[in-house]
Amino acid sequence: MQLTDPDLVTPSLVVDRKRLADNAERLRRRFSDHPVKLRTHLKTVKALEPAHMAMPSERGPAAVSTLREAEVFGRAGVTDLMYAVGIAPQKLERVVALRYEGIDLKIIADNSAAADAIGAAARRHGTGIPTLIELDVDGHRSGVAHGDADALLEVARTLYENDCLEGVMTHAGESYALSDSRSLAKAAEEERRGTVSMAGILEEAGMRCATVSIGSTPTAFSLADTAGITEIRAGVYLFFDLCQAGIGVCGIEDIALSVLATVIGHQRDKGWTIIDAGWMALSTDRSTKDQAVDQYLGLVCDVDGMPIDDLVVVRANQEHGIVATRPGSGATMAELPVGTRLRILPNHACATAAQHERYSVVDDGLEIAATWERFGGW
Amino acid sequence: MQLTDPDLVTPSLVVDRKRLADNAERLRRRFSDHPVKLRTHLKTVKALEPAHMAMPSERGPAAVSTLREAEVFGRAGVTDLMYAVGIAPQKLERVVALRYEGIDLKIIADNSAAADAIGAAARRHGTGIPTLIELDVDGHRSGVAHGDADALLEVARTLYENDCLEGVMTHAGESYALSDSRSLAKAAEEERRGTVSMAGILEEAGMRCATVSIGSTPTAFSLADTAGITEIRAGVYLFFDLCQAGIGVCGIEDIALSVLATVIGHQRDKGWTIIDAGWMALSTDRSTKDQAVDQYLGLVCDVDGMPIDDLVVVRANQEHGIVATRPGSGATMAELPVGTRLRILPNHACATAAQHERYSVVDDGLEIAATWERFGGW
Repeated sequence: MQLTDPDLVTPSLVVDRKRLADNAERLRRRFSDHPVKLRTHLKTVKALEPAHMAMPSERGPAAVSTLREAEVFGRAGVTDLMYAVGIAPQKLERVVALRYEGIDLKIIADNSAAADAIGAAARRHGTGIPTLIELDVDGHRSGVAHGDADALLEVARTLYENDCLEGVMTHAGESYALSDSRSLAKAAEEERRGTVSMAGILEEAGMRCATVSIGSTPTAFSLADTAGITEIRAGVYLFFDLCQAGIGVCGIEDIALSVLATVIGHQRDKGWTIIDAGWMALSTDRSTKDQAVDQYLGLVCDVDGMPIDDLVVVRANQEHGIVATRPGSGATMAELPVGTRLRILPNHACATAAQHERYSVVDDGLEIAATWERFGGW
Repeated sequence: MQLTDPDLVTPSLVVDRKRLADNAERLRRRFSDHPVKLRTHLKTVKALEPAHMAMPSERGPAAVSTLREAEVFGRAGVTDLMYAVGIAPQKLERVVALRYEGIDLKIIADNSAAADAIGAAARRHGTGIPTLIELDVDGHRSGVAHGDADALLEVARTLYENDCLEGVMTHAGESYALSDSRSLAKAAEEERRGTVSMAGILEEAGMRCATVSIGSTPTAFSLADTAGITEIRAGVYLFFDLCQAGIGVCGIEDIALSVLATVIGHQRDKGWTIIDAGWMALSTDRSTKDQAVDQYLGLVCDVDGMPIDDLVVVRANQEHGIVATRPGSGATMAELPVGTRLRILPNHACATAAQHERYSVVDDGLEIAATWERFGGW
């Protein structure tokens, strides 16, 4: 079947396998001479086939954002996993159950209450639960504050005494707000240095950090020196998206994900073309809103995947997208008759992919070569 | 199981069945003395049990926003259906196939290209495909422009000649931007009058409108006079949400939907409590952004569903929500230890529900009385 086939349901999620393979290879090559593991974050793809294209082995390593992902990927053989969201005490029994299944699931924590609960679960089950202490290097979100040795050591000691201390990890999420290579390189180096120095505090206190893990797609593509770290995590790079293009770590032509849509009408006096992909298919993500080029709810391409100049989805309802020229661009609206197939590039691949149950896979053309099932839930 | 049970996975979608029943009853009662059908839009609930609570009969009537919904609900016996998104010509074969299954699926169109395709499909199959002409009464989205009799008659004649003209329909989507009862009543009356006058143009031309359908939750709750219309459509009223509360058609205490989440950490110097519900569970919908009270990504309640003053989800990543007091409110952050269960009221119930696979059903308490499976896709 081709993307132009009337029987193909729209909206549909399309992935260009060639671009995906190139994106995977680009990050792999970047660190091929460094003694670090690349731990792909599978929250973006949530499907086995693209995961296997990214990982060095069937076993991983990989990161996940939900225990459902740990279950599905773990039971499919991806056993070297990190659940990279601070653990809720209530989830520990499920973590231990997955570990008993032979899945080497590591967890993260940034506070004493969580560490106490992890220690108690480890004692209850008579087995360590490998835990990384989450560090905050850029004020983005969670993590023990950089330089707060007391907080770090308090969490670490509880884990260490219960045979649960695996190492430290950070996510330099503030890098998403950057857009020049110099700032990105600086953010990446600060992420590395901050993480290594906090690991050093633990080592000095006699607690070994087997794993020193950092990562975000922008910093992973901007890091020069890997001294002191053992692994790098990234996920969205497999698909890339308009937000990453705005940051500058990829080009529009590298984006491997798009939403196939069909024109269903026009409001010509307003310059609107209406498509059957609304926020249900695109998500309402507006990650490019504060970037130099606002892509609104997505950049419109023809069915071959070539961007149509300054054509964006300006508004969306549940199952309607309103396509128009980018406000202020002065561009002329292309004539797109009812029935025309279009492809919309996403602002944020993780959010757009999450709206769909499967991928239609193409290899740099219109022919659908495969279908990959996605999963969701927690 | 209770909402406080450690084994209950968070984030989870919770629906309060008592509130849902009350909301359904409120709209039913509103039109019980009027000679109009209430056609519930099932795009919000996407599950059979709440659909049955809203519809007067197992057969419907109901509206859907995707052909997948038409298939699932239709095959479950909800056979009086309107697919309320302008038809793409490519979808007509699937529509006809569903009609051959005995599902009385009606479609909508607002342009000649679509009408031509519908006429051709009807001739090809030797059977009418009941179609409503979509009208634009408020400039919101799709539809033949109000007063454009030529465009209306052109679309209508093609449908009529092919035994496909069922009537007219509108959706007064601009009502979502209103917030006082006077403006809402005016918008509802304009929706009604505009639709009835366009139906009159068809009647004068000798083409009967069996169905004159209007609707949106805000206008359905604001309409006084139903003269000339045969049915009213609404969907989000079954759950209501913060956006509808901001518009003024419900109270916060009527909202039947929430996302159960667990506290996983804090950044106390910033006044942040971090929960395990990010945009994957809440959606990134910001419908209340321009209302008098900005609810950010959702209003935070305790596990019993009581709002905690001025506590909102100020930011979200994929699986992290950052809870803080509403900026500018001057409120003091409540102490919410790691492991605390919270419930987040959604800005937009359709968008939040769409992120989940099932509902945990409570009856105005903590006990989970049932689980309802949702579906998605196209």
